[in-house]
Amino acid sequence: MESNACNIMHSHCVEMPMEIHQVVPPPHKSTLQKLKARLKETFFPDDPLRQFKGEPLRKKLILGAQYVFPILEWGPKYSFKLFKSDLVSGLTIASLAIPQGISYAKLASLPPIVGLYSSFVPPLVYAFLGSSRDLAVGPVSIASLVLGSMLRQEVSPTADPVLFLQLAFTSTFFAGLFQASLGILRLGFIIDFLSKAILIGFMAGAAIIVSLQQLKSLLGITHFTNQMELIPVMSSVFHNIHEWSWQTILMGICFLVLLLLARHVSIRKPKLFWVSAGAPLMSVIISTLLVFAIKAQNHDISVIGKLQQGINPPSWNMLRFHGNHLGLVMKSGLITGILSLTEGIAVGRTFASLRNYKVDGNKEMMAIGFMNVVGSFTSCYVTTGSFSRSAVNNNAGAKTAVSNVVMSVTVMVTLLFLMLLFQYTPNVVLGAIIVTAVIGLIDVPAACNIWKIDKFDFIVMLTAFFGVLFISVQGGLAAAVALSIFKILLQITRPKTVMLGKIPGTDIYRNLHQYKEAARIPGFLILSVEAPINFANITYLNERILRWIEEEDNIKEHSNLQFLILDMSAVSAIDTSGVTLFKELKATLEKKGVELVLVNPLAEVIEKLKKVDEANAFIADNLFLTVGEAVASLSSTMKSQSSTIREGSHITPHYS
Amino acid sequence: MESNACNIMHSHCVEMPMEIHQVVPPPHKSTLQKLKARLKETFFPDDPLRQFKGEPLRKKLILGAQYVFPILEWGPKYSFKLFKSDLVSGLTIASLAIPQGISYAKLASLPPIVGLYSSFVPPLVYAFLGSSRDLAVGPVSIASLVLGSMLRQEVSPTADPVLFLQLAFTSTFFAGLFQASLGILRLGFIIDFLSKAILIGFMAGAAIIVSLQQLKSLLGITHFTNQMELIPVMSSVFHNIHEWSWQTILMGICFLVLLLLARHVSIRKPKLFWVSAGAPLMSVIISTLLVFAIKAQNHDISVIGKLQQGINPPSWNMLRFHGNHLGLVMKSGLITGILSLTEGIAVGRTFASLRNYKVDGNKEMMAIGFMNVVGSFTSCYVTTGSFSRSAVNNNAGAKTAVSNVVMSVTVMVTLLFLMLLFQYTPNVVLGAIIVTAVIGLIDVPAACNIWKIDKFDFIVMLTAFFGVLFISVQGGLAAAVALSIFKILLQITRPKTVMLGKIPGTDIYRNLHQYKEAARIPGFLILSVEAPINFANITYLNERILRWIEEEDNIKEHSNLQFLILDMSAVSAIDTSGVTLFKELKATLEKKGVELVLVNPLAEVIEKLKKVDEANAFIADNLFLTVGEAVASLSSTMKSQSSTIREGSHITPHYS
Repeated sequence: MESNACNIMHSHCVEMPMEIHQVVPPPHKSTLQKLKARLKETFFPDDPLRQFKGEPLRKKLILGAQYVFPILEWGPKYSFKLFKSDLVSGLTIASLAIPQGISYAKLASLPPIVGLYSSFVPPLVYAFLGSSRDLAVGPVSIASLVLGSMLRQEVSPTADPVLFLQLAFTSTFFAGLFQASLGILRLGFIIDFLSKAILIGFMAGAAIIVSLQQLKSLLGITHFTNQMELIPVMSSVFHNIHEWSWQTILMGICFLVLLLLARHVSIRKPKLFWVSAGAPLMSVIISTLLVFAIKAQNHDISVIGKLQQGINPPSWNMLRFHGNHLGLVMKSGLITGILSLTEGIAVGRTFASLRNYKVDGNKEMMAIGFMNVVGSFTSCYVTTGSFSRSAVNNNAGAKTAVSNVVMSVTVMVTLLFLMLLFQYTPNVVLGAIIVTAVIGLIDVPAACNIWKIDKFDFIVMLTAFFGVLFISVQGGLAAAVALSIFKILLQITRPKTVMLGKIPGTDIYRNLHQYKEAARIPGFLILSVEAPINFANITYLNERILRWIEEEDNIKEHSNLQFLILDMSAVSAIDTSGVTLFKELKATLEKKGVELVLVNPLAEVIEKLKKVDEANAFIADNLFLTVGEAVASLSSTMKSQSSTIREGSHITPHYS
Repeated sequence: MESNACNIMHSHCVEMPMEIHQVVPPPHKSTLQKLKARLKETFFPDDPLRQFKGEPLRKKLILGAQYVFPILEWGPKYSFKLFKSDLVSGLTIASLAIPQGISYAKLASLPPIVGLYSSFVPPLVYAFLGSSRDLAVGPVSIASLVLGSMLRQEVSPTADPVLFLQLAFTSTFFAGLFQASLGILRLGFIIDFLSKAILIGFMAGAAIIVSLQQLKSLLGITHFTNQMELIPVMSSVFHNIHEWSWQTILMGICFLVLLLLARHVSIRKPKLFWVSAGAPLMSVIISTLLVFAIKAQNHDISVIGKLQQGINPPSWNMLRFHGNHLGLVMKSGLITGILSLTEGIAVGRTFASLRNYKVDGNKEMMAIGFMNVVGSFTSCYVTTGSFSRSAVNNNAGAKTAVSNVVMSVTVMVTLLFLMLLFQYTPNVVLGAIIVTAVIGLIDVPAACNIWKIDKFDFIVMLTAFFGVLFISVQGGLAAAVALSIFKILLQITRPKTVMLGKIPGTDIYRNLHQYKEAARIPGFLILSVEAPINFANITYLNERILRWIEEEDNIKEHSNLQFLILDMSAVSAIDTSGVTLFKELKATLEKKGVELVLVNPLAEVIEKLKKVDEANAFIADNLFLTVGEAVASLSSTMKSQSSTIREGSHITPHYS
């Protein structure tokens, strides 16, 4: 009852000569102030300097050093208790990192030992510079795949291994340089354009491509294609049936089943994470012993062979900044840089939000970039935070980046003393390890979810997926990004205009198609424009609005349209072309005897409209703060102007 | 007083247990229905078939024929009175079209007669197909400039004139094909991406480039560079000072002054439009007579020379769809096609809105495209509606496309009988005619206006201008388009979030920085997001919103923040990534003890949120139709929850 009483009063309020509130422009700012504010929001949305404000110089210096080296922040508070956790998790990820390092290096067509080098130096650098506590750093499958496939386009890793290695290190250098520049120039938002939909499609496609490459070692084929795409790989597999080795296939199937089972156990019972974390190393040990015991290398099972002992040799003298491959290394550096950055940042953010701390995106980019530049000087190829190993790291209870240091030291010990042991490790086990690792990248439930929510995103996802499978890794990625940008542009080119109606008993105006109880006000056409108005859509908006009015004219009962009210609440921006829309619209409407009224233009919009409108007084007369106030105010003028014509209007003011 | 009374009642209403209105999702539609609606809005925003609805078949056929051939619509009503107007205007534009046709063909490095051919066939075709009454069709300066400069990159017009001509006709064919396809596929919105700012900058740059090219004929230089850009042209001019001919320069200056004076007179007194319209033909006649009289061709003044008599020979056998220049002709067809389409459509729309009739953009594209395809079969190069001649046509009182027919017939008579007269026409006069024509393309007041309204648009304009001057015509255009798309993407990547406050005595919530009287509600943080939420901005929005909350925590008086209200009125769309933002935000906020509330999500947004939210009941509990209702409803729960803590709140409900 009370509610009804209010409603009556409410509608009573509306029908009385209510106070009309002025639309005011925002306080004046100079161009320079506006530019400063815009630049700040664009490049420093996280306001990185805010903690420095009002602090004494000494404190500022400390904060600055802690910003560059996060280790200075958590290092002094480090305790033995934390170290125990980090030791366990560090050893766990090392047991995963060593076989994966060797496998991923082979995926990139690089010598296996480069994968171990890349698991030694970069984690140490990251421990000092990185702000994530969970990131496990090292080579990753996708960046390895892309780097290898791009470099193989111009140089053969078997015919010219030294040049190939030089190009890989130079690409790593450019990747690091590019990543660090993105961070320093605060352009980190560029990686946001790789949307979730793109990543899901891309990773699934890449997982299949990577798995297909493993058919070489899983089937024991010696003459394998250099190409990556589905069709040439499959044709290569079936053209070389005579090379298939049943011993290798048998061994491969056994270890694949073993590894997949271990993975399955860990997924079902997260507490048993160590089962899948330890499985790759166990497989390597068992298979190596097996090969050694039965001398299987003489029975058609290919092994890694002798590896050089010792830690990373310097490689700055191997960087090539001249010659005819410079374009290629810059391009592959750019693409692997973006891809590895995306993976690293996404992993960092995921675990940070899980454990409720903050990761500074731009800072992380600098850390990952610097890590790769240092890596390129020390015989490492592109590294980043790995999805799978970071999850294991987190599960194993890592507390700080010290777990990376532990892993790094373990790898160093391996490099110094244990390299001989890998001599008999069969390649087929490495293939099985890669397949097991990348199979987790295929996320079918997420794909279903995308289908459910947004069909266009699903198409973008499919584009990335099939593009990677059938065109090329970078081609699929580019097509998907182009399609998502096209979607955004299309949304702006064809903005929605919806007709609003009054929700009975209120002053609220909402979409007539969504709110069935909303009712039109005779004599008024109330439209809401739901996008920025700019060069890309003024032609459409002009045509669309005129069509609304034409449709109006065809309905007899509304034929005496007098006011077009445009609700501008959702028009977030306007440009010079957008401003002309209102001029043109006003002129056209005047010929039809319809008056144009604007409601609630936002700060930027009203400012620009005022600038154009210095001459005629269009703005001042036809601006209202809410649709309700506009209707109330205008229907009173309408009544007094044309009371003889418009008898029986819905709006019957009580005053006269 | 009455107004105050209402205000009191109004605020009274707010503080009573008001009825809370439900946010409802839009009526269910299948994916197919949505796809259909979306496609219709994207490709048929003008609903071209609506006039066919409910008509009998006969009428439908007539309407269909009239749609394809607008001449069937106005033809039957044509009268002698209309013809008189069209005759005058047709002769006027012919007097302009003949000298301009010859000059523009020379600008495109084509034989002068091709310019006349192009002023004969295309206007006839357009008269049948076009829907504009004012468009004067023929060759235009910018398309001529671009066509010539692009083809010269690969083929020299002096060394291999036949191949050059073949490539020009083939480019014209592709331009027409591309234009017609845009119309048929209803992709006309693509030309909207050439915004006004781009066009102003581009046309000014092109006008300067075109004028610089005329230095060749104005100074009488014989060895001139083949390049277009400012620096090579100026260096070519000053390296050939010894070739400058004082007779040519003198004659050039005289006629330039004459033509500019005529232009000035017509601008000052629009009724004297015929002064500037007739001046070029008069200059040609006077200068030709002068050269003939004093045998000036022997005194270093270069003349056009002998021109072939007769109308257009067929040229379909000259189209080359094979060979190594196919890429070039397709590219130049594409670019000249877009440019000439933009000019033609813009001119058509301008005069249509001036004289209050409608021009169907996609239909016009088909007409212009078909006209160019026919042109490429009949020795014509790229044509469109010309800015300058259409203005003269309109001023001279053209009523229908018959004025184009009159012009075309006049050109035909010239081609058949008067070609010998041009033998002694000096090139320097043609140069002066071009300079006078293109000088009007430099629109300084419009540039100033852009600076006043939108600084970024001004930068886009400068990019187009300097790009054309220093890089290349197509390079400058591409850079400017890329920059404007980048601006749109930036607006989406960094959407505005503004803090709302309550305007006293109302239920209206508006930007606190814009409306100084608006006041905050303690315990609430009310933010309005002003852009679609998608993959490109969720990271930013997440960070930015958390920063708002952090800033909140630092202000003591607001430290007990309980609700974050997001006003979604301006969020026009959302994608799968956008949906995850709310999940993450909700999780983060819960840790801080802040509740997330959404207000007025639009149809599409609520639909997608509902889809994700089937499991938890997040949406149902925290959705409100207006900020006012949300605050009213939530502050009552807040009061009852924590009445001991929050004494002295602004909101003191009268009930208990």
